[in-house]
Amino acid sequence: MTRPTPLSGFPEWSPAQRIVEQQVLDRLRRTFELYGFSSLETRAVEPLDQLLRKGETSKEVYTLRRLQAAEGDEEQSLGLHFDLTVPFARYVLENAGKLQFPFRRYQIQKVWRGERPQEGRYREFLQADIDIVDRDTLPAHYEAEIPLVIGDALRSLPIPAVKIMVNNRKLCEGFYRGLGLEDPEAVLRAVDKLDKIGPAGVAELLIEGGATDAQAKATLALAEIRAQDASFEDAVRALGVEHPLLDEGIAELAAVVETAREHAPGLVEATLKIARGLDYYTGTVYETEMAGFERFGSICSGGRYDNLASAGRDVFPGVGISIGVSRLLGLLFNADAIGVSRPVPTAVLVALWSEEERATSNRIAAALRARGIATEVAPVPAKLGKQIRYAERRGIPFVWFPASAAAEGGDQVKDIRSGEQVPADAALWNPPAEDLAPTLR
Amino acid sequence: MTRPTPLSGFPEWSPAQRIVEQQVLDRLRRTFELYGFSSLETRAVEPLDQLLRKGETSKEVYTLRRLQAAEGDEEQSLGLHFDLTVPFARYVLENAGKLQFPFRRYQIQKVWRGERPQEGRYREFLQADIDIVDRDTLPAHYEAEIPLVIGDALRSLPIPAVKIMVNNRKLCEGFYRGLGLEDPEAVLRAVDKLDKIGPAGVAELLIEGGATDAQAKATLALAEIRAQDASFEDAVRALGVEHPLLDEGIAELAAVVETAREHAPGLVEATLKIARGLDYYTGTVYETEMAGFERFGSICSGGRYDNLASAGRDVFPGVGISIGVSRLLGLLFNADAIGVSRPVPTAVLVALWSEEERATSNRIAAALRARGIATEVAPVPAKLGKQIRYAERRGIPFVWFPASAAAEGGDQVKDIRSGEQVPADAALWNPPAEDLAPTLR
Repeated sequence: MTRPTPLSGFPEWSPAQRIVEQQVLDRLRRTFELYGFSSLETRAVEPLDQLLRKGETSKEVYTLRRLQAAEGDEEQSLGLHFDLTVPFARYVLENAGKLQFPFRRYQIQKVWRGERPQEGRYREFLQADIDIVDRDTLPAHYEAEIPLVIGDALRSLPIPAVKIMVNNRKLCEGFYRGLGLEDPEAVLRAVDKLDKIGPAGVAELLIEGGATDAQAKATLALAEIRAQDASFEDAVRALGVEHPLLDEGIAELAAVVETAREHAPGLVEATLKIARGLDYYTGTVYETEMAGFERFGSICSGGRYDNLASAGRDVFPGVGISIGVSRLLGLLFNADAIGVSRPVPTAVLVALWSEEERATSNRIAAALRARGIATEVAPVPAKLGKQIRYAERRGIPFVWFPASAAAEGGDQVKDIRSGEQVPADAALWNPPAEDLAPTLR
Repeated sequence: MTRPTPLSGFPEWSPAQRIVEQQVLDRLRRTFELYGFSSLETRAVEPLDQLLRKGETSKEVYTLRRLQAAEGDEEQSLGLHFDLTVPFARYVLENAGKLQFPFRRYQIQKVWRGERPQEGRYREFLQADIDIVDRDTLPAHYEAEIPLVIGDALRSLPIPAVKIMVNNRKLCEGFYRGLGLEDPEAVLRAVDKLDKIGPAGVAELLIEGGATDAQAKATLALAEIRAQDASFEDAVRALGVEHPLLDEGIAELAAVVETAREHAPGLVEATLKIARGLDYYTGTVYETEMAGFERFGSICSGGRYDNLASAGRDVFPGVGISIGVSRLLGLLFNADAIGVSRPVPTAVLVALWSEEERATSNRIAAALRARGIATEVAPVPAKLGKQIRYAERRGIPFVWFPASAAAEGGDQVKDIRSGEQVPADAALWNPPAEDLAPTLR
């Protein structure tokens, strides 16, 4: 076998990076559960027709085929899921009779997209989604809860400060309609290009689409509004546009911003340029910037949708948000902005004086493990210096010397970073709390 | 959209079952890390030629294709991995220069096999593997360590008692050779059928293969030997066969059994009929029975292999074992032999007197969450009885009544199972320890 090489677009973390990923996922999961979200895992595959319901994603799908499938095998065409929303919608429909609504679920899984890999875009990556879905109707206050959950989750991580930028589709649509613009989706698509082509470019697009100079100007003025409290309403009202849908959107957005402001000042900002590409959002929309990484775009996005799924007369509206975990970690790893205190779980290496005394070293290791201290026994009874270097190379902070050959008295334990060596009893000794497990930095 | 139906062979757990799965995985991971195993995740896909190196598995592979791949696109053929050993071997080769050997890793991931689904056999399932791999040579004592790890891991779960059955390939091969049987692999394949076709059937196979009656009889006598200590050696010696490889195998198996006997009496049994189908094992082999579920076969199997991977002059021997997590959980769920105290993470539902008072209820929820108590706020300010029934239906044990409308005085909390209601302060109150999180039963 020749030495294999990585596959472009399929990232694999090193053991140390994997510890970071696991601790990040543990913290996300912890926060999601504190808010009462249930974990869900769906199968990796969906029927191809389900995956292709939204036409524009068809290019991204990996289809599956059994290598030995016989000609004419009448099997359903399957593909790997490209997000966690399509499978969740299918799961809700399939299990609607067994679920309690409103249903709060989180889902942390790999997804696959057959896109050309490029900077920061993967073909296999991990997403962490939360959604609250209800039957028939979903109260708007859940749109205010999502930023609290995701704010707590992201702020539990040792990452740069995040800002959740929120807007409201009703507010935009009401404003555009009140302004006399009759194709709000087209206006939104133009505004979505603001960061890319600038205000002049957007104005040009709008005017090409039939807007007057005044309408284009008002649309851009709306998109400029930002506020971390309900004061955005004054700025909107000052533009002199009126529409019932605008009032509804303002009230909903005010509730989102004010709820977040009480919970975590500075976390959420009404940012009225936020458009989100997808047209199935119907209320609040979210994007998230990380300080110093703004140019890489949103690390966590979502919104309110009135029709996650429907079957017959059953309709399931929801609100959700998705963290691009692989993307986030990839950015942080590349910038060396996150790491871990050691690359292995092991806190202690028990030295070995001779192969005959392995049972003694095993007994010490078992006593330490029984009290939650991750421990290995040395691979071979090499010279002491070699055993210490083995621990050093692996990043294990402590080496334990069993009594039988320790200079005098009983067992001793050495912190190989400081060189400090002290007598110790495997039934009692504990490492400093910060050395018990690898810790994020 | 019509109501979708499950895909045969692709199990999906309910939210309650998923809590069981997560807690099981947490405990496995905890034990693996206590023994110093590093977590690894490899990509789900491997180049097809890697997956097909072992010819007999080719029928199981799912191949991938990008839906919009153009004719003549020169992309590498990819397939989903069907186990975690092939990707681990590839990972070790690819990263050999960066890894510290012996490398201890655990890997918990889904794998896919395009087999016809049938009772207890899935097309997508979760495996939990541990392996210790070294460069050039691997000391035999690691073969004795694996059962300690896996024994601790399985015994940390609320499942029926497990017994790890061990044998040694050198012992068998040495015995067969000492007996004058020159094709030990063929003999092993015959012995592997013992449970299926019985001793008479195996004897017939052996004799067809050229063995004498006496050779067949001795082979079957060896396969009958079982012992939970090194006394199996006396039974083997009594058969009067001699061979240097037999001596080596006996010594290694004795070390495995005796090491385990000191660590956990009753966990490991030398069971000399254990053959394992795969021919790449070269030392100890493991299979695991669960009390009451013996007829479903081994829930956890593995062994020592001298060549996990090689490139040029580099050879990587290892020893490993794999728990079939989905299979294990499927058996236990079907038998209702494992479950959880409640189907949601939530411990407390904070009642809501009116939509205007949501901020008050949110504040209480935040105070409880800050102290690690999973809390939800009621969806709507319905009548009190309705809010309590909502908690009941979801399986939430406590309902919190904010002060503003509680009969008199401050907040109160009610255990809706017992009906007991007491005054409570969100900054101080704790549920009983067993109600803090769902617990396995």
